[in-house]
Amino acid sequence: MPPINLAIVGVGKIARDQHLPSIAGNPDLLLVAAASRNGAVEGIPNFPTIEAMLDAVPFVDAVSLCMPPQFRYDAAYKAICAGKHVFLEKPPGATLSEVADLEALAIEKGVSLFASWHSRYAAAVEAAKSFLVSTNIQSVHVVWKEDVRHWHPNQDWIWQAGGLGVFDPGINALSIITHILPTSIFLRNATLEFPENKHAPIAADLNFTNSDNISVHAEFDWRQLGEQTWDIIAETSAGKMVLAEGGSKLTINDTVIPVSSETEYAALYRQFASLIKRRESDVDLAPLRHVADSFMLGKRVFVAPFHD
Amino acid sequence: MPPINLAIVGVGKIARDQHLPSIAGNPDLLLVAAASRNGAVEGIPNFPTIEAMLDAVPFVDAVSLCMPPQFRYDAAYKAICAGKHVFLEKPPGATLSEVADLEALAIEKGVSLFASWHSRYAAAVEAAKSFLVSTNIQSVHVVWKEDVRHWHPNQDWIWQAGGLGVFDPGINALSIITHILPTSIFLRNATLEFPENKHAPIAADLNFTNSDNISVHAEFDWRQLGEQTWDIIAETSAGKMVLAEGGSKLTINDTVIPVSSETEYAALYRQFASLIKRRESDVDLAPLRHVADSFMLGKRVFVAPFHD
Repeated sequence: MPPINLAIVGVGKIARDQHLPSIAGNPDLLLVAAASRNGAVEGIPNFPTIEAMLDAVPFVDAVSLCMPPQFRYDAAYKAICAGKHVFLEKPPGATLSEVADLEALAIEKGVSLFASWHSRYAAAVEAAKSFLVSTNIQSVHVVWKEDVRHWHPNQDWIWQAGGLGVFDPGINALSIITHILPTSIFLRNATLEFPENKHAPIAADLNFTNSDNISVHAEFDWRQLGEQTWDIIAETSAGKMVLAEGGSKLTINDTVIPVSSETEYAALYRQFASLIKRRESDVDLAPLRHVADSFMLGKRVFVAPFHD
Repeated sequence: MPPINLAIVGVGKIARDQHLPSIAGNPDLLLVAAASRNGAVEGIPNFPTIEAMLDAVPFVDAVSLCMPPQFRYDAAYKAICAGKHVFLEKPPGATLSEVADLEALAIEKGVSLFASWHSRYAAAVEAAKSFLVSTNIQSVHVVWKEDVRHWHPNQDWIWQAGGLGVFDPGINALSIITHILPTSIFLRNATLEFPENKHAPIAADLNFTNSDNISVHAEFDWRQLGEQTWDIIAETSAGKMVLAEGGSKLTINDTVIPVSSETEYAALYRQFASLIKRRESDVDLAPLRHVADSFMLGKRVFVAPFHD
């Protein structure tokens, strides 16, 4: 089978750091074009817009969309209507409704749509899932605390309405727990902390349960100095599980468990190529649905102004 | 076929005004029990909780849940696990995730789940839908403006976080437009106005489009004195359509169109009985998804404090 002719749209930091190396390392994929307002990829044709690219390079089979979420729907719509398979960076869109619309459109047009959640492919996630399905879970505690000034310096868009604020990293935690927990969860109450001068939250405290009233408590905070924390701790009938460092390390009762050596984005592109071969889609809206539920149900409190 | 043995849970104003008369008028349904913390229905056994009722009256086939949305999941979960068909008042839950969970559970347990949207059964809605499918729509304007002091006097829960505020009536408009428009829409931007002293919005301005960039502009306001407005106006290739008075009156180019004489709740219970007979569910989350999208994407501005 010849490789899939892939194009990338939105050549920014995440595309350079993660997408381009992972595409280059996958023999099923051949990068043939790029479209970006500002960036460019050396050695292939570059275009200012996805429309120009789709016109000029008709043999593109699939596109990977790495621009900010508020621009993703229009590009995805054009690509799917042109019969291209589509990879969506996370979050898959600015609203739940637009992604639901794309999902229906992909079925209608017979193409594969992949709403990717990179943290689900972190090295220890599958091992954590396997452990949890074999136990009775008593409680879960999610702690996702990082320094926004370090990870998103002077990125104004993350503070705009619709920019999700601390849910931008927090949705990674939600993508992991919705994957590893054997039952679905839903929000019971939430508090979102908004800096007085911003339209997006800097911290969130979320209390979920499942239908058995097991507590899943999540704390997201963007004001963490010093050590950064991306941990999921489960108390279970078989002891304590700690999935640490964003899903990359796993200990069960303090014993370190062996994990995958594949990187997150290599695994994402392996999954995308596999979906295309099988003519299937993979669109799980649960992480974004929990974010929307948090904004709908959550109590807003105002905290000190934030300045970069 | 004998009538369906129905129980009602949450005997408040909406139950008395709408549910009880509609159930009494439907020969397929027989009201056999009620559960409520405060209210009671004369002439049938009454219980303080749904658990007590399900224990005491095992021949209940179906339950209608009329309590506030934040208490609906637990009652629905218990009813579905007991093998009962479930009617959910609108909105179907406090979160999207919990309703998605109930939908999956209903399939697993082989019962019918009906997430009802009463405004979809307003007298002129089907005629409006039939008209719109035959035209090219150029733009849609939704104006939903009422006086909260008149319709929700001293109801503190509507102002709590999760109480939805002006989206409590606004979701009725969203339930109609998502039913009558031939294509799906999604939010592009939104502004929500919060009284300084409340946790829920008193007004919202929402700009939706569909994939063809047709504008659907919705204005919700709870500060309307004098005449109350619940109108949907569509400019189309066949002229101007006005669906007025919450879906009950229709004019096309100023000509009044004949409409159904069935009341909204009579039609809802006809649909519920039909779903049970066909062993089907009817759970469309689109209206609540647009509300959640509005809270997630919308810009919050603060306005004068509100006092009843």
